[in-house]
Amino acid sequence: VSYGWLSFLTDYGLEDGFVAACHGVIARIAPTARVIDIGHAVLAGDIRRGAAVLAQTVLALPPAVHVAVVDPGVGTERRPLAIAAGTSLLVGPDNGLLIAAAEALGGISSVYVLANPQLWLHPVSPTFHGRDVFCPVAARLATGTALADVGPAIAPSSLARLAPPAVVVSGGVLEADVVAVDHFGNVQLAATSVPPEWQPGQLLTVESGRGPQPASLGGTFGDVEAGDLLVFVDSAGHVAAAVNGGRADALLDVAAGPRLRIGPADR
Amino acid sequence: VSYGWLSFLTDYGLEDGFVAACHGVIARIAPTARVIDIGHAVLAGDIRRGAAVLAQTVLALPPAVHVAVVDPGVGTERRPLAIAAGTSLLVGPDNGLLIAAAEALGGISSVYVLANPQLWLHPVSPTFHGRDVFCPVAARLATGTALADVGPAIAPSSLARLAPPAVVVSGGVLEADVVAVDHFGNVQLAATSVPPEWQPGQLLTVESGRGPQPASLGGTFGDVEAGDLLVFVDSAGHVAAAVNGGRADALLDVAAGPRLRIGPADR
Amino acid sequence: VSYGWLSFLTDYGLEDGFVAACHGVIARIAPTARVIDIGHAVLAGDIRRGAAVLAQTVLALPPAVHVAVVDPGVGTERRPLAIAAGTSLLVGPDNGLLIAAAEALGGISSVYVLANPQLWLHPVSPTFHGRDVFCPVAARLATGTALADVGPAIAPSSLARLAPPAVVVSGGVLEADVVAVDHFGNVQLAATSVPPEWQPGQLLTVESGRGPQPASLGGTFGDVEAGDLLVFVDSAGHVAAAVNGGRADALLDVAAGPRLRIGPADR
Repeated sequence: VSYGWLSFLTDYGLEDGFVAACHGVIARIAPTARVIDIGHAVLAGDIRRGAAVLAQTVLALPPAVHVAVVDPGVGTERRPLAIAAGTSLLVGPDNGLLIAAAEALGGISSVYVLANPQLWLHPVSPTFHGRDVFCPVAARLATGTALADVGPAIAPSSLARLAPPAVVVSGGVLEADVVAVDHFGNVQLAATSVPPEWQPGQLLTVESGRGPQPASLGGTFGDVEAGDLLVFVDSAGHVAAAVNGGRADALLDVAAGPRLRIGPADR
Repeated sequence: VSYGWLSFLTDYGLEDGFVAACHGVIARIAPTARVIDIGHAVLAGDIRRGAAVLAQTVLALPPAVHVAVVDPGVGTERRPLAIAAGTSLLVGPDNGLLIAAAEALGGISSVYVLANPQLWLHPVSPTFHGRDVFCPVAARLATGTALADVGPAIAPSSLARLAPPAVVVSGGVLEADVVAVDHFGNVQLAATSVPPEWQPGQLLTVESGRGPQPASLGGTFGDVEAGDLLVFVDSAGHVAAAVNGGRADALLDVAAGPRLRIGPADR
Repeated sequence: VSYGWLSFLTDYGLEDGFVAACHGVIARIAPTARVIDIGHAVLAGDIRRGAAVLAQTVLALPPAVHVAVVDPGVGTERRPLAIAAGTSLLVGPDNGLLIAAAEALGGISSVYVLANPQLWLHPVSPTFHGRDVFCPVAARLATGTALADVGPAIAPSSLARLAPPAVVVSGGVLEADVVAVDHFGNVQLAATSVPPEWQPGQLLTVESGRGPQPASLGGTFGDVEAGDLLVFVDSAGHVAAAVNGGRADALLDVAAGPRLRIGPADR
C-alpha cells in the first residue's frame, strides 16, 4: 500500500524552519507525495488540543499518512507509533495525541512501535524526532514500506490515552467540558448532541464563568441577532456556542470556566 | 475548460484545521490540481480587507479557480456564487468579496448561483460552506465541470457590492480612504495615482489622526532617511505611505483616522 | 541543470498576499516545480534571524533553488544575487542573508548579480523585488536557465557579510551571543560545542539578564525536572538552553541580555 498524501500537524509554529525541515525530509524520501498541513499553531505541548484538531480534520482529507507531533516527551521513554485506522495511517508519539483521530477514521486496526532505526535519519536529534524519526518513517510508509517494517506490533490497549472530557445530560440540561475555542471565538463542547427536550429555536440559558447568559438554539450565526448568543451543532458535530458577529469566548468568559452548563431559559 | 490551479483566501485562521479540511476536500475531488494559499489571516468577517487582498494578488497567479470565503452570513440567504472573469473563475459568497478581483481579472463575464446540491458535500454544515459548498464546487470546476452546471445564471448587476472608498484629488491635494495596513505597517490608500502637480522628490505634508507629518514623494523605502515618511506608489499600484525602517501606521496613528490627506509641504 | 524544488523564506508575513503573489509567479514560470515555504514570520528587516533560519533548514531540504528575501534595502543599490553552493542555488539580496546557508550547503562556488532584466517581470515594482526579480529569476533557474544568464559573475569576497556572533570558551566557561529564541522559548547560542571539561549531567550556572540560574547539561527536555533549566546541543547543532515544559527566554530574561555565560555550578 502506498499513499499519495500525507498530512502534518504539530505545535512547532512557523517562525523557525522546523516545519520546513520536516517538509524537506518528506520531499527527499517521497518526492511525489503531497503534504496537507493541518496546522502548526497548537499551543506548545497542548496534546488535548492537537488531538481535537487532528480528529476533527482527518475525515475531510483523502486517505493519507497523517503525521502529528505534539510531543513534550520527545527523546524520553514515550514510544513513537504508527497506527493503522480505516484506510489511513497515523504516525506520532504515544501520548494520546492520535487516539481520537484513529477512532474518527474507523478505529484502530493495528499499532506498531517505531523501533527500526534503518528508517530514520541519523544522527537522530533527541529534541527533533519530527524531522529525524516521525517524518522519515511516515514518508517511507507513503512510498510503500510495510507497516510491519517499522518495528514490533503492540496491543492497542497498551496505548496512552487522554482522560475523556465530561459530558452530562439530564432533564434537558447539558453540562460539558470545553474542547476548544476556535479562531472566531466559538466555544466547542465535548457533547455531540443536544438534549432531546430542546426544540428548534429553543430559548436557553448558558452558565459559565460570567454567570447565566441568554441564548437560542439555532443552526447558523445569522439565526440570532448580531451580538446574541447561539447554541448550535458545529461543523465537526459538536455542540458549541457562538456570538453572531462577535466572540462567544469573551461573552462567556470561558477562560474562567472550562465547562458550560446549558439548559432551557425558563428554569 | 479545466484548471491546474486553485487559489484560496479565507478568514479562517490556521489554528483549527478549517483550512486543511478545505484542502482535503479539494484533494479528494481534484487530486492533481494544486492550491496556492493567498492567505487565511484576514480579520474575522472583514469582507473589505479580504476583497482588497484578493484583488491585489490574483493578477500574479496563473489562471485558476480562486476560492474566497469571508462569509459572516454563512448559512443565511446570501447567495453562493461562481463568477467568470478573464481567464479565471471566482467562487465565494455574494457579499462584495469577489467584485474587485473580478474587475482586476478583466471584468465579470458571467455569474452563476451555486444551487446544484449534487456538487456539494453532504450533510452540508450550515456554518462551514467553505468545506461543504465552495471548495467542492471549485474543485469540480477545476476538473472541467461546466459553469452552467453549478446553478442558474444571474445578472452581474444583481450582485452585492461594497461601497467604493473615497478618493478626492483637487489642486494638488489628495484625500483618500485607507484600504489596508500591511505587515510592515505601510498604509495603502484607495488612490491609484498621485496628483499631476507632484514632482519626483516632492516634499509633502500628510495629515492623519496625529496631525501633519512631513514626507517626500519617492519610489522605494531607501529614498528617504531612516525613520522618515515616504509617499510612493506601491507594488499593487496604490498610493501608500511608509517609514524607512519603521511603521507608517504608528507614525500616522492610522487607527485614529481612516483617511489621509496629502498635499505639498508648502501649503 | 534544473530543479524540481524551490524553497522560500521572507519577512513578508502572511496577512497581505505578498507570499501568494510570489508563489503565483513561480507557478506561472515553473509550473511543475514545487515550493517548500521555510517561513515568512521573520521579524521585518531582521536579516540576522532570516540568515539563521535559512542556514539551519536548507540541509534538511532536497537540492533546490532557495529564495530568501529579507531586504530592507529593496530598490536601492544593494545587489540582487544568485549563488551556487553545493548542489543548490541561493537567490536573494546582497546583505548577508544568504552567506551562512551557502556555507551550510558546502560553501560558495560562484556568485552572479541579477542584472538581466529579460528574466524579470515588468514593470518591476521598486518595493517588491520578491515578486518581480527574485522569484522570476529563481523560477527560471529551476527550469534550467543557466546561472551565467542571470548576469555577470562577481567575486565571493565582494559580498556583504554579517558581523560574526561572539563565542568565547575558556576554562570550562562558555560565553556566547544568542542567535535565536525559538517558538518554544528555547534560547539558541552561537556556540556549536560545549567546553570539553563538561561531563554528561554536569551541573551548570547560566548567567543572563536575570542573574545566575542553575541548570544541567543534558540531551532532551525530559532530562531535567519540569520547570528546570537544561543546557543541550539542539537539533541544529547549537548549544541552547531550554526549560522542561516552560520557556527559557522567560526564565533567563533574554530580552535583557543578548549574551549568555554558562559555567560549572561550583565556581
